[in-house]
Amino acid sequence: MLIFRTPGELQQWALAQRARNVKVGLVPTMGYLHEGHLSLIAEARKRADAVVVSIFVNPVQFGPNEDFEKYPRDEARDLARCEEAGATAVFLPTPAVMYAPDASVFVVEERLGQGLCGARRPGHFRGVCTVVAKLFNLALPDVAVFGQKDYQQAAIIKRMVRDLNFPIEIVVAPIVRETDGLAKSSRNVYLSAEERQNALGLSRALALAAEEVAKGPCESQALRQKMVRLLEQSALRVDYVELVDAEQLTPVAEAVPGTVALIAAFCGKTRLIDNRIL
Amino acid sequence: MLIFRTPGELQQWALAQRARNVKVGLVPTMGYLHEGHLSLIAEARKRADAVVVSIFVNPVQFGPNEDFEKYPRDEARDLARCEEAGATAVFLPTPAVMYAPDASVFVVEERLGQGLCGARRPGHFRGVCTVVAKLFNLALPDVAVFGQKDYQQAAIIKRMVRDLNFPIEIVVAPIVRETDGLAKSSRNVYLSAEERQNALGLSRALALAAEEVAKGPCESQALRQKMVRLLEQSALRVDYVELVDAEQLTPVAEAVPGTVALIAAFCGKTRLIDNRIL
Repeated sequence: MLIFRTPGELQQWALAQRARNVKVGLVPTMGYLHEGHLSLIAEARKRADAVVVSIFVNPVQFGPNEDFEKYPRDEARDLARCEEAGATAVFLPTPAVMYAPDASVFVVEERLGQGLCGARRPGHFRGVCTVVAKLFNLALPDVAVFGQKDYQQAAIIKRMVRDLNFPIEIVVAPIVRETDGLAKSSRNVYLSAEERQNALGLSRALALAAEEVAKGPCESQALRQKMVRLLEQSALRVDYVELVDAEQLTPVAEAVPGTVALIAAFCGKTRLIDNRIL
Repeated sequence: MLIFRTPGELQQWALAQRARNVKVGLVPTMGYLHEGHLSLIAEARKRADAVVVSIFVNPVQFGPNEDFEKYPRDEARDLARCEEAGATAVFLPTPAVMYAPDASVFVVEERLGQGLCGARRPGHFRGVCTVVAKLFNLALPDVAVFGQKDYQQAAIIKRMVRDLNFPIEIVVAPIVRETDGLAKSSRNVYLSAEERQNALGLSRALALAAEEVAKGPCESQALRQKMVRLLEQSALRVDYVELVDAEQLTPVAEAVPGTVALIAAFCGKTRLIDNRIL
């Protein structure tokens, strides 16, 4: 497995793959890899000849009061997992090699990023779009795989690819969950034993929504209230509970099959997100 | 010569060139081609196996009170000139095929675009960066050629390529002038005979700056005043006269060899720009 630590090394390799018509798949991650990430690598392997995994905790997508500094990192374990998962190359840059001190060009999305996490994390999706555009230009992938866990992010990346005409296929892979339903997340490591139990509220509230919608269309306001109640009963502090159109991410008045339910909630100090296509 | 009218046609062709390792050059233009544009095509031909000329009056880079509607267009003549100049392909999209009605992703530059034309034309360079990023992803060039006439634009595009890691070499070709010194511009067609004469003030003010700096370093404020006086004597209304650092585009206190002098001035209703590396 190849290891690149600078943008130049990755791009040079990618140009060489292109010249040989090797189909490249990219899996952008922030590391601390779990089974969710491994499923993305497996998906990329199905669709490409060579798979690059990028591991980069991107400072530009973190707010000043967020967890950039304490975000979990374990390079040795991540490299072992990538190797096991059959990655061709891993890209492990530092912020200093990714951003010039006078970096001044950014990619912004002005519609899908207005609500949900975008409203709570100003600048987050600007950071995400910018770093993903950079990774696209460095790894020159034919296909890139993102997780549905970050539903809004995946929608925004698809929009970026459409609006900036990147010649890249975007694949969104399903959420991988623990056996009790908790969505896999690098941030789950922050949870105490009690919080870990409370965290089940998210997937349970989404399951509740799915059950209700399976019975027939639901007035959104009433369904949201039921979900909020369940979250609060799990000692979670709700950041948002939304029922939105799957493409436009705009709130729907009535939840129907295909509507997406999204939750962000604080479990202790840890902010968790989860979602489900109803 | 190939003619493409949709993004899909161009990108499909570009991907086929890439698969055959054909080196592609791109010359983005707004059409109404003059000798300045032809010099860019010639430059691209020297550096690439196949040259794409894009002709697109990009609505996103025009302000509401600017000349988008009346900007001169002559498709038949442009195609003939491209063919003569040895272009491999011309890309002639409409705004409707370039921008989805709900387009929401843009590329912004937040430093080099603050002054000069950026300060006078809000949103202009956001439109330029966005359309050039799209053209890069559609034509997939190895090299792209821009004119020094739009000095600030060229600096911003180089910055975009650096900050977003596009695998593209940017070449900036010298300004082509009429025999009397007026910089070639599609907008020169707007000028009456009298205005055409007055327009010489721009290149003369730049020549004056070059002469002064050739004698020794010049205090910028004094030199600017001399240039402004010359422009006003030519019946030009000054939009800006600036002496800036060639890379950062920040005003310098003292003009020296390598300083860039830039002018924007209204000649009647027509806004003209010109510049010179002193």
